Amino acid sequence: MAQNLSVTREQVLEFHLGGKVRLGLPRPVRSQRDLCLAYTPGVAQAVKELAAFPEKSFDYTSRANLVAVVSDGSAVLGLGRIGPEASMPVLEGKAVLFKAFAGVDAIPVALDLPGVDRVREFVDAVTAIAPSFGGINLEDVAAPECFEIEAILSERLDIPVFHDDQHGTAVVVLAGLLNAARATGRELADLRVVVLGAGAAGVACTRILLAAGVGDVAVVDSRGVISADRAPGLTGTKRWIAESTNKAGLAGTVRDALRGADVFLGVSGPNLVEAGWLAEMNQDAVVLALANPDPEVDVDAAPANVRIVATGRSADLNQINNVLAFPGIFRGLLDARAPRVDDDAKIAAARGIASLVTDEELAVGRVVPSPFDPAVAPTVAAAVREHLGA
Amino acid sequence: MAQNLSVTREQVLEFHLGGKVRLGLPRPVRSQRDLCLAYTPGVAQAVKELAAFPEKSFDYTSRANLVAVVSDGSAVLGLGRIGPEASMPVLEGKAVLFKAFAGVDAIPVALDLPGVDRVREFVDAVTAIAPSFGGINLEDVAAPECFEIEAILSERLDIPVFHDDQHGTAVVVLAGLLNAARATGRELADLRVVVLGAGAAGVACTRILLAAGVGDVAVVDSRGVISADRAPGLTGTKRWIAESTNKAGLAGTVRDALRGADVFLGVSGPNLVEAGWLAEMNQDAVVLALANPDPEVDVDAAPANVRIVATGRSADLNQINNVLAFPGIFRGLLDARAPRVDDDAKIAAARGIASLVTDEELAVGRVVPSPFDPAVAPTVAAAVREHLGA
Repeated sequence: MAQNLSVTREQVLEFHLGGKVRLGLPRPVRSQRDLCLAYTPGVAQAVKELAAFPEKSFDYTSRANLVAVVSDGSAVLGLGRIGPEASMPVLEGKAVLFKAFAGVDAIPVALDLPGVDRVREFVDAVTAIAPSFGGINLEDVAAPECFEIEAILSERLDIPVFHDDQHGTAVVVLAGLLNAARATGRELADLRVVVLGAGAAGVACTRILLAAGVGDVAVVDSRGVISADRAPGLTGTKRWIAESTNKAGLAGTVRDALRGADVFLGVSGPNLVEAGWLAEMNQDAVVLALANPDPEVDVDAAPANVRIVATGRSADLNQINNVLAFPGIFRGLLDARAPRVDDDAKIAAARGIASLVTDEELAVGRVVPSPFDPAVAPTVAAAVREHLGA
Repeated sequence: MAQNLSVTREQVLEFHLGGKVRLGLPRPVRSQRDLCLAYTPGVAQAVKELAAFPEKSFDYTSRANLVAVVSDGSAVLGLGRIGPEASMPVLEGKAVLFKAFAGVDAIPVALDLPGVDRVREFVDAVTAIAPSFGGINLEDVAAPECFEIEAILSERLDIPVFHDDQHGTAVVVLAGLLNAARATGRELADLRVVVLGAGAAGVACTRILLAAGVGDVAVVDSRGVISADRAPGLTGTKRWIAESTNKAGLAGTVRDALRGADVFLGVSGPNLVEAGWLAEMNQDAVVLALANPDPEVDVDAAPANVRIVATGRSADLNQINNVLAFPGIFRGLLDARAPRVDDDAKIAAARGIASLVTDEELAVGRVVPSPFDPAVAPTVAAAVREHLGA
C-alpha cells in the first residue's frame, strides 16, 4: 500500500460531502412550451406510444443508457455485511466511473431487505425496478447468495445482469493471463492455475478461465484444495467446483497445489502465502495476488522464477482493476441492447483489454493496460458489440 | 384544450428520443487521485463512516437531495393501468421538473409488480430501495391501493412519502380556495364545497379542505352524494368520507348537491356537469374543474354568479398545476431532513403558494400564481421549512 497515492480520511470525507451523483438534464425546461413537451399535456403522446409498445421504452425514455448499480450491503469491500447505507459510497463511486469512463448513466440503488429469504427478496426488488433500466450491475453481494441471485435475475429479466465482483474481476484476470501466456510463448491450455479463494471472485475467475480454455484449475478454500472426493459433502457452487476443476487430482494445502503450477491467483485475503512457496512453481510463473490493500503474498519478495506479477494496488505495474472491464462491457451491451451477457461476451471483453498491451510493454512485464488508458472502454465496448453482432 | 400551446405527437416523440434524464457528476474524475478519492481505495473511509453511523448517509452520499419518483403504472394520466414502461415519460418529466424548479435530484423508478398483492408488493419494493433516497414521490398509483400504500410507507420509512396525485393537487386547490375566499371576503369556514370524484385527488382534497377549516364538504361519486347512511355498506376511504363529510346531510346527484353550494371542485372526468347547473350555486361561486384536457364543465359558459374559475389547462388564467406544489414541498422537506410530511406542512405550502397572488391579480380573478413564477418553489420551501422549525 506504501506506493499508493495517499489520501487521508478527512480528504475522502470532504470529497464525499453532499454525495457524488446528481440528476443531469439533457434538455432545458425554460418555457411553457418545454413544459408542454416534457410534461403535461404533451407527455401523454409518449405515454400512449409506450402503452401500445412497451419495448419502445428503449427509445423514448432514458433506460437504454441507464444502469442500476445495486447492492444489499452484504459484502461491502472487504468489510462484510455492513448494511445498505454503508454500501452507498461504493455504488455512487461506481456510477461516477460508469459515466466518466463510458458515458453510461448509472443509478446507485442500495437495498434494505428484511433478510428472511435474501435471495427471493433481492430478486423481487430488482425485478420490480427493472423497467426503468437497460442493465443491472450487482455490486458487493455476498457469496453464495450472489450466484443464485444473478442466475435467477438473468433468467427472469430481458436486460443484462452482471455481478461485477465476480465477472469484472474475472474478465481483467483473463486479460492478464492471456497476455502472460503471450509473453511467455504459451497457450492457455498449457497453464495450470491455482485459485486461492472460493468466494464470488474466485468462482467467477474459475468459470471464465475454464471457458477460455485454461488447461487446469485447482481451487483452494479454507479447508484446502477442492477435489472430486469432497463433492458428495458439498452443494451449489462448491459442488460445481469439486466436479469441474482439478483434473490433476491435487489434494492438500495451497502450498501443495502451488508445486509445479504455472499461475497463482489470489482472491482471498492478505498474507496467506509465503513468498518462498512461489519458488516451487514452474519457470515463468505468473502471480496475481488481488487482496487489497495487502496482497495474499509479498510480491516484492517473489523469487526469480516468477515472471509476471499483478495486484489490486494502483501503484503496481499491473493493477487488476475492474474499471478496465465494467464500463466498456456495459457500453457494449447497452449499445447492442443485449438482453443478457454470456461467457463469450466476457471473454471477448478480456481479449479486447489484452489487445491494448503492446509488445514493448509485454517485454517489461506489463500484462494489463492502465485504468486511465482512454482506449480501454471503447475497445472493450467494440469487442462486446462485435461478439453480439451489433 | 383549444387555447393550449399546441405540440404535435411527432414533436413530443422527438423531444423524448433518448429520454429526459441523465446522470450528472458534481465533481470530475480525471486523475488517479480523483479515482482514489471517489472509488478505491479512498472510498473505504466513507464506507467505514457509514457502517458506524448509517444516518450520516445524509451527509456523505447524495441521498439528502435525492427523491425517487415511483409508479407501478396503475393510473397513468387519465389512461388507467397501462404498465410501468408507459409511466416512465411521466416519471422522467416529473424528475425534470423537480430539478428545473427546485434543484431536487429525482430518479424515475417504474415498478413491475406481480400483482398478486399490489399493496404489499409496492410497499416492499419501495422499502427496499429507500436507503438510497431522502424522499419518495408516489405518482400515478391507482385508488384505493394508493391510500394504503402511502400510509404504510409513511409509517415504515424515516423519509417523507408524498403521493403527488393526491396531495400536490390538494395543496394547489387549497391555495386557490384560500385566495378565492380572500377575494370575496369570506372565511374557509363560510364555504360549502362539492367535490365530484372520490379517487386519489378527490379524497386528498377533501382531507386537506377539512383540515384547513372549510365549513362543509360533500363528495359525489358515481352513485351520487356520499352520506352517512351509506357508511355501513362502505369500507376504507369511502367509509371515512361517509363518516367525516356532508354535515348538511345532502343526498342525490351532483346537481342536487350544487344547489346553494359555494365551491364546485371537479376531480373526475370531462363534461359531467352542465354549465346551467352552476347558476343554482351561491353568489360569488368558485368553480375548479380539473379534468384534463377537458374540464368537468364548460367553464367558458359559466353563469354570472360564478366569480372564480380554475382548470388544469395551461392556457387558462388559473391553472391548478401540481408543479406549483411538489418541487417546493420536497425542497423544504429535504432541507429540513424531515422524516415525514403531515397535513400542516401541506397547509403551510398552500398558504405559501396563495401568498404570491397580489391584490391586483386577485381583483381580476387570479387565485394561483403562474407555474413559471420563479418565486413559487422558494416560497413554498420556506413555508414548509418554517412549519418544521428548520
